[in-house]
Amino acid sequence: MLAQRVSALLPVADLTDHAPPSEVQLPAPRVSAPFAFASTDPLDRAAHAHGKAFRDVVRNLHAEFPHTPDAVLRPRTEADVVDVLDWASGETVAVVPYGGGSSVVGGVEPRFDGPSVSLDLSALDQVLEVDLVSRAARIQAGAFGPHLEAQLKPHDVTLRHFPQSFEFSTLGGWLATRAGGHFATLYTHIDDLVESLRVVTPAGVSESRRLPGSGAGPSPDRMFLGSEGTLGVITEAWVRVHARPQWRAQAAVRFTSWPSAVAATRAIAQAALYPANCRLLDPTEAFLNAGTDAPGGVLVLAFESADHPVDAALERAVQLCREHGGEPRPREQGDTSGDWRSSFVRMPYQRDALARMGMIVETFETATTWDRFDALHAAVTAAAQDAIARVAGAGVVTCRFTHVYPDGPAPYYGIYAAGRWGSTLAQWDEIKAAVSEAIAAAGGTITHHHAVGRDHRPWYDRQRPEPFAAALRAAKGALDPAGILNPGVLVD
Amino acid sequence: MLAQRVSALLPVADLTDHAPPSEVQLPAPRVSAPFAFASTDPLDRAAHAHGKAFRDVVRNLHAEFPHTPDAVLRPRTEADVVDVLDWASGETVAVVPYGGGSSVVGGVEPRFDGPSVSLDLSALDQVLEVDLVSRAARIQAGAFGPHLEAQLKPHDVTLRHFPQSFEFSTLGGWLATRAGGHFATLYTHIDDLVESLRVVTPAGVSESRRLPGSGAGPSPDRMFLGSEGTLGVITEAWVRVHARPQWRAQAAVRFTSWPSAVAATRAIAQAALYPANCRLLDPTEAFLNAGTDAPGGVLVLAFESADHPVDAALERAVQLCREHGGEPRPREQGDTSGDWRSSFVRMPYQRDALARMGMIVETFETATTWDRFDALHAAVTAAAQDAIARVAGAGVVTCRFTHVYPDGPAPYYGIYAAGRWGSTLAQWDEIKAAVSEAIAAAGGTITHHHAVGRDHRPWYDRQRPEPFAAALRAAKGALDPAGILNPGVLVD
Repeated sequence: MLAQRVSALLPVADLTDHAPPSEVQLPAPRVSAPFAFASTDPLDRAAHAHGKAFRDVVRNLHAEFPHTPDAVLRPRTEADVVDVLDWASGETVAVVPYGGGSSVVGGVEPRFDGPSVSLDLSALDQVLEVDLVSRAARIQAGAFGPHLEAQLKPHDVTLRHFPQSFEFSTLGGWLATRAGGHFATLYTHIDDLVESLRVVTPAGVSESRRLPGSGAGPSPDRMFLGSEGTLGVITEAWVRVHARPQWRAQAAVRFTSWPSAVAATRAIAQAALYPANCRLLDPTEAFLNAGTDAPGGVLVLAFESADHPVDAALERAVQLCREHGGEPRPREQGDTSGDWRSSFVRMPYQRDALARMGMIVETFETATTWDRFDALHAAVTAAAQDAIARVAGAGVVTCRFTHVYPDGPAPYYGIYAAGRWGSTLAQWDEIKAAVSEAIAAAGGTITHHHAVGRDHRPWYDRQRPEPFAAALRAAKGALDPAGILNPGVLVD
Repeated sequence: MLAQRVSALLPVADLTDHAPPSEVQLPAPRVSAPFAFASTDPLDRAAHAHGKAFRDVVRNLHAEFPHTPDAVLRPRTEADVVDVLDWASGETVAVVPYGGGSSVVGGVEPRFDGPSVSLDLSALDQVLEVDLVSRAARIQAGAFGPHLEAQLKPHDVTLRHFPQSFEFSTLGGWLATRAGGHFATLYTHIDDLVESLRVVTPAGVSESRRLPGSGAGPSPDRMFLGSEGTLGVITEAWVRVHARPQWRAQAAVRFTSWPSAVAATRAIAQAALYPANCRLLDPTEAFLNAGTDAPGGVLVLAFESADHPVDAALERAVQLCREHGGEPRPREQGDTSGDWRSSFVRMPYQRDALARMGMIVETFETATTWDRFDALHAAVTAAAQDAIARVAGAGVVTCRFTHVYPDGPAPYYGIYAAGRWGSTLAQWDEIKAAVSEAIAAAGGTITHHHAVGRDHRPWYDRQRPEPFAAALRAAKGALDPAGILNPGVLVD
């Protein structure tokens, strides 16, 4: 359906389907990892060479593997992880921690010289304890989203963390990259769901105390959250779980003016109503993902609770929309929020299909304060459209808000452009550099929830305060003196 | 009133009032700070030697000043702060950052050998910018609570951060110590109100970007939050402000059983109702602070909003209380929540008056998960009562919850014991060590919002993961190579 809608917008694009290659040639492993759980199978190594970005899909389609891990290690216990870091520190072999491999920023790719192993945590996938009194669970880092929820379900609780990569990603990956969940407000970031972390570092195992809150020095957990495998390997965490929602209320509100739609969204974000969903889709996004015609965009609103009705909160949010010219769509005219939700879940599959057709299909995201949003949005959109026109001629830029805060939104942009088969990666790289420069110049963050990885390093280095960079390098030196952990990510 | 209620509980205590000393003898300054904004006035130095803990009040009453800063420096600009750190790094003079001096953990006391200066930020007290669109304000770190709110009021916004020390403490102090506000849930910790920080370190000025959210590496702000003056001097921050509340609803619910009161409070904390106040007072606390007789304690509930009525939320919370045997007190029988609020604000004054009467009056606090609360509470109460019996004979231990989280409460304990004038400090130290050991053994945090300072170091060192300690020491080495910043706090 998305392909049909995209081709309606790009009628001249050549959308010939290209099949992936049938085989892959890899160089021989440069290092022999002395572990029973080591694999040097070429397909295994190739499957761990890339993440899931557009650039990864394209390179996979062209069988381009400039860097592959020399082995894939699948530890079965935390002690195995300790052994791997000891061995790798001694032999100076780089270790790239690998959860579901859904990085879209080059976070799991051994893009450096020298031998490396991919440390695949997927065998550590158990929910170890559930504490229903405190509503918390101890879970191993390698558990994928669906498996994790399936283990929680018999206890009638949920982690309620649903990033778009949910099926393809693990708790440890979410923690290491500060993942953002599906929900628009309040406790949606994995950061806020953490009670304590257990992390294997080359300098020893770090375990924080299970605490609902603490003011004892800087938070140890916050140092490891977002460390992207550079400071240690997260092996398990106590996370906060929730009773399953019983009450729900939702609406889709159509706007005829984009500035009014933004103003309404801001009013809701600042009203302490805490919607579960508050996703503003711009007109193109609304058309592509829900087939909706709305000149000012559509705001998808949802509230939910495990304890009490939420109709009054929805009513108040809709009232704020009306005050800004929004009109709720009658439910019988099509449930945009349901449409939208299913398209959100299908998106990773659809993106891959479009890439096979020679399309440039990718997303980028940021966050900024409300006072700067209009200028950032104009600059980013212009930079994207200019770059698309330059490299690809025809294309579409879409925007939606994935998360809204009282002080600003997290806009998420989509690019759909007609690429030239064989050149789409270079074309995308030029667009990506242009939009990243625009984001940096407009004061946004280079990433709100996709992480830094290797692709965002130039802009991340400019964004972070230099004294913090010095402190982070020093912390890494203390925890990873041999410098084996995910080289090239965050610090050098 | 508190004195009368305490003496009712401790009828045999000798409550003779002792006046503070009329003068103070200090050693001559060991260092001459070459700044126009330096003061070596003895009273100024004495006033900056201690915080506001019971141990500080007692030592002040006895004119005991074992450590005083050699000068008090009051920078007028951030450039002055840079100059002070440059000079102090060159001369190896310790710098103790000082906001309002309300530390209750020895955080501002130069409890070490060698020369030191107290860096009093109180001249940097301006609200510099207010961004009403994003609801944020740029504020200098030395602004005291009331002055900060007075500057925000013309803009019809509030920071809504009211720690018990509100009158006596500054924004910078709140940030450096991860202060907890008055409100029981949601955005009450200063950590969550921070958009960006500006920090002068000996290695340079660190300024984070104004962002509502970011996933770019570990949070730079979270490294400085809770750093207690050891990594740098916070000079200003962008903080999130709020529209002033228009709707309020409150109730006080009386319980006949403490376990039921705890269960009701847990149910409310896990219902996503987000009360502004959800303060469970145990029977003694309810009597001492509100004159209320309630065998199971009193739960003080309040809801507030700037946008919408909150009666339904209060009703649901009260219903949860009824399901656990709680009975809301009719308003005409005395407004416990109002009583309690005024006693909260008066407490610092009352504590000082009781200390003059030879009483041991002090508080300590922690946080723990709900599943461990009963055991922690029993152990801490027993340790406190044993220690009181041993050192003072008669005394009272009280408990209230200052903050509640879905996964656990933050219990706050009060001690009222009949001390021996001249020995109350040693008596308190023995009680404090006993309760701190009990907290540590029961898995609580040594501090939920009072910070670590110098008094909590032994237990903090055991609580934090050792790899994190190594990382923090390395970070300090990078930012403060001469080791001048608040020696003895957090790291050595």
